Amino acid sequence: MSLLTELAIKAREESQVRIYKKNVERVLSALLKSGDFWQIVDMSDLPVPAASGIVKVLIKEGYAFIDDEENIRLTQKGYDLIKELGIEPYVDYTCQACEGRGIPFYIDIEFYRTFIQLTKDRPKAIRDYDQGSVTPETTVSRVLFMDSRGDLRNKDILVLGAEDDLTGLAVALSRKAKSVLIIDIDKRLIDFDNNIFKELGIDNAEARVWDLRNPFPSEILGRYDVFVSDPPETLPAFRAFIGRGIATLKEEGGVGYFGLTLRDSSVFRWRDFQIALTSEFGVAITDIVQDFNAYITWDYHKETKAAQIAPVRREPKDIWYRSSWYRIEALPGFKRWNEAISDDVFYLDEEGSTT
Amino acid sequence: MSLLTELAIKAREESQVRIYKKNVERVLSALLKSGDFWQIVDMSDLPVPAASGIVKVLIKEGYAFIDDEENIRLTQKGYDLIKELGIEPYVDYTCQACEGRGIPFYIDIEFYRTFIQLTKDRPKAIRDYDQGSVTPETTVSRVLFMDSRGDLRNKDILVLGAEDDLTGLAVALSRKAKSVLIIDIDKRLIDFDNNIFKELGIDNAEARVWDLRNPFPSEILGRYDVFVSDPPETLPAFRAFIGRGIATLKEEGGVGYFGLTLRDSSVFRWRDFQIALTSEFGVAITDIVQDFNAYITWDYHKETKAAQIAPVRREPKDIWYRSSWYRIEALPGFKRWNEAISDDVFYLDEEGSTT
Repeated sequence: MSLLTELAIKAREESQVRIYKKNVERVLSALLKSGDFWQIVDMSDLPVPAASGIVKVLIKEGYAFIDDEENIRLTQKGYDLIKELGIEPYVDYTCQACEGRGIPFYIDIEFYRTFIQLTKDRPKAIRDYDQGSVTPETTVSRVLFMDSRGDLRNKDILVLGAEDDLTGLAVALSRKAKSVLIIDIDKRLIDFDNNIFKELGIDNAEARVWDLRNPFPSEILGRYDVFVSDPPETLPAFRAFIGRGIATLKEEGGVGYFGLTLRDSSVFRWRDFQIALTSEFGVAITDIVQDFNAYITWDYHKETKAAQIAPVRREPKDIWYRSSWYRIEALPGFKRWNEAISDDVFYLDEEGSTT
Repeated sequence: MSLLTELAIKAREESQVRIYKKNVERVLSALLKSGDFWQIVDMSDLPVPAASGIVKVLIKEGYAFIDDEENIRLTQKGYDLIKELGIEPYVDYTCQACEGRGIPFYIDIEFYRTFIQLTKDRPKAIRDYDQGSVTPETTVSRVLFMDSRGDLRNKDILVLGAEDDLTGLAVALSRKAKSVLIIDIDKRLIDFDNNIFKELGIDNAEARVWDLRNPFPSEILGRYDVFVSDPPETLPAFRAFIGRGIATLKEEGGVGYFGLTLRDSSVFRWRDFQIALTSEFGVAITDIVQDFNAYITWDYHKETKAAQIAPVRREPKDIWYRSSWYRIEALPGFKRWNEAISDDVFYLDEEGSTT
């Protein structure tokens, strides 16, 4: 058995999450680039418990140590290992113009400015609902992405459980949709949106408080061309947000957008999601754009499991939490799932940690 | 039943491929932007037979006509329909810096120049093997993408059935892989690569002639960290290229890259591919970047079924054929498929047309 595989097994015991050899390799590669734990999580595309488990095992086995400034540094033994295995530093070729999304957020600069201006007093992300806001550049890019795929103009659009990002507000502000319904559990966000709609005389958009653990009323089902969401990465939450989102689509050809991260779920979980999407719900996946969604570190970071299990106490200095952007298309015979969810692992399970 | 749905049903009868309402809408949206049939195919993200069927039905029903220069134009009845349905022109927000790939091809400008210089006398794409070369910018971006995901440096890499794009050559020229094996059916390309390797003294790369309809010999199975391919979009070819590619991976965490297009297969077929990947082969899909791969129109275009079924005789003037870029990761228990294929629909079926 290779040394990396042995380390992976130890890290798995340490963290109780699925880890294989390649994950250890990516953490070592990241360590050649940065000593900041949160940057290492970002570069290695791993759930926090996995990255933390690997770093802890590397320290325990003498390959790394924590310096006075809480940087994680390689020891000589660590450098020797890296040389022996031919591991090289993480490289980042992300396009600076579009931040890697393939679509530049500034292409409609007036739209971007309006969004920034109107949302400067937005409600802060709070822990109760697993909130975390994406950057305004991300939110605006989501709307542009939808527009470039023909999923915005004159469409009936439902935004569910993603309003901490103010995505529904941005869709409404584009003034290109036929109608916009925003569903969120957080009354602060619903009021924020409805006030802006009233103020600007936007009468085709509406925001309503709803707990997605409850089934949708029948008037919402089968009524939308497009839904947008940003679910927590547990399987029950995925069903509640995405299964229910699909249930609101009018017909085949209906479209869904949502973020999925590798920071709170593994690539193993991703396969489960993908099997559910294609085999159970009857949709095709047309896009997965990694690192499309960049999140502003939430004020409640210190209180999270992520902060507690991290090998260092130092807080994130920059953006470290990203998610990919999925687009799906409903095919004939797609399934409308709308059952009640009463699961206590709705927000958090063994791979998640940022709630 | 809506008028668009009626048109979709008629187009389906006309073309004998799966078409739904949304597809008709996208073609109408494209028609507001261009009269060039090949640009319409590009913008509507449809298989050629589907786009052609829709255009033919629109003409038959009086919504469009073909002008003297073989442009497809809307009639007044067509404009009335578009207005009634609120269809707006196709919009394109593709990042000009990275051509929408998220990674700029010029980030290592020396590498790009070397590739251009060495490949200026490359063999032309020929019809026998369903060839079609991507632009040099695409090929170089593929290598940069692999590098940025940790799938290049010191890796054993297999490039199978994608050498019309000279992807294996580019991987070898990066001089970052541990070893490169290139497999292709076309001896011209194999000789071209091997000559360059000899000339430049690249001794960790080798090219070999192989027909992927035949199973791999055992020495190739389970030997690679990463495979790269570009399969024809039939189900038998998908198994032969991608199933066999997965069979060559050393272990869990192994990675595959390949192009899949919506010009020669529908989103229905994509779901079949995705079910095979996740449920049968045991891999997770980590990336789907639409329009990553841009193809230079092949010299044999006139001889293709695409040219024959098109509503106009006019040839493509610009790039119109694109494919998405998939990345997959093998999970524990992944399946090594390596059976013989003797299928006469290897290159072409009802949705394909560019062979």
